[in-house]
Amino acid sequence: MPDSPAITALLFGLRGCLVETETNLVPPRPTPGALQTLAWLQQQQVPCAWLDELSGADAEHLAAALPAWLKAHRVATPWPAPDACWQALMALNTVKLEGCVLVSAEPRLLQSGLNAGLWTIGLATGGVRHETDSPQEQERKRGKATLQLFALGVHSVIDHLEALGDCLADISQRRLKGEKP
Amino acid sequence: MPDSPAITALLFGLRGCLVETETNLVPPRPTPGALQTLAWLQQQQVPCAWLDELSGADAEHLAAALPAWLKAHRVATPWPAPDACWQALMALNTVKLEGCVLVSAEPRLLQSGLNAGLWTIGLATGGVRHETDSPQEQERKRGKATLQLFALGVHSVIDHLEALGDCLADISQRRLKGEKP
Repeated sequence: MPDSPAITALLFGLRGCLVETETNLVPPRPTPGALQTLAWLQQQQVPCAWLDELSGADAEHLAAALPAWLKAHRVATPWPAPDACWQALMALNTVKLEGCVLVSAEPRLLQSGLNAGLWTIGLATGGVRHETDSPQEQERKRGKATLQLFALGVHSVIDHLEALGDCLADISQRRLKGEKP
Repeated sequence: MPDSPAITALLFGLRGCLVETETNLVPPRPTPGALQTLAWLQQQQVPCAWLDELSGADAEHLAAALPAWLKAHRVATPWPAPDACWQALMALNTVKLEGCVLVSAEPRLLQSGLNAGLWTIGLATGGVRHETDSPQEQERKRGKATLQLFALGVHSVIDHLEALGDCLADISQRRLKGEKP
């Protein structure tokens, strides 16, 4: 993955972003690319946390699929208020909003990130594998989700977490050119 | 004062911004223009709060000079971390960071506002009346403070709170042109 300087902190949605949404999976499965992405971010020393509105036990069950160093933030204030994102950033001891990024497939969480002033990256596939869909049908669903996420106002849309490194590098370039979220 | 649309929330420093810094004044005195400015903001229904690092009793003593409707936010996390500003915004049930503004004479609080992603307005006089200074000396001190505040990165500098209405209108114009803090 390319080097992406100056990401201050990275927040992830849990369901549909880091962990697949079929919550009855035992054990729960990380989404494609989630573990590699997290390992790369840890190596880059980027502070990371996940957010979810699930109750404690359900969220812990899902998060068991993820590395233990990743911070959890269970939400007191419902999305799309900005509070959840600010609280997660404070829990990471974030020194500034500049360079903070949220990745999620959940429109209400993405709206919370936009309200909090973060860079927001929408995940068009939502961590759901529709293995019975034809390639054309998968492509149609992905296209529709992409349009809906951009209509919300997110700064970038990716199809899967394997594309996150390139997307963060793109955001770094946009920041260098003076763009603000 | 001119009409300034779309200010989401307004945070003030207490000492040196809303209340004069000679804390031994009994009763404490609002800074010139503070009460008129607050009355105008209340009329505009702009949610407002003050922040200070003072202990509870000392802050209450000073805040007694201010209207009771104004929200207080005593700070757990020291400036210049962004936490104090985010916490004050959450206490005001702020729905978005966009259009949130901080006014202060205190460089560390202004830095907290910059770190939190707010529009920041520096107050060059710091609420201190140097009545024994000559007009030339007052002007020299104000000029020096103005340069120091801009060097910090604040978005605007005003000499006294009477100028806040015009300054907020200017920030609204800058926002309309696409500028972000």
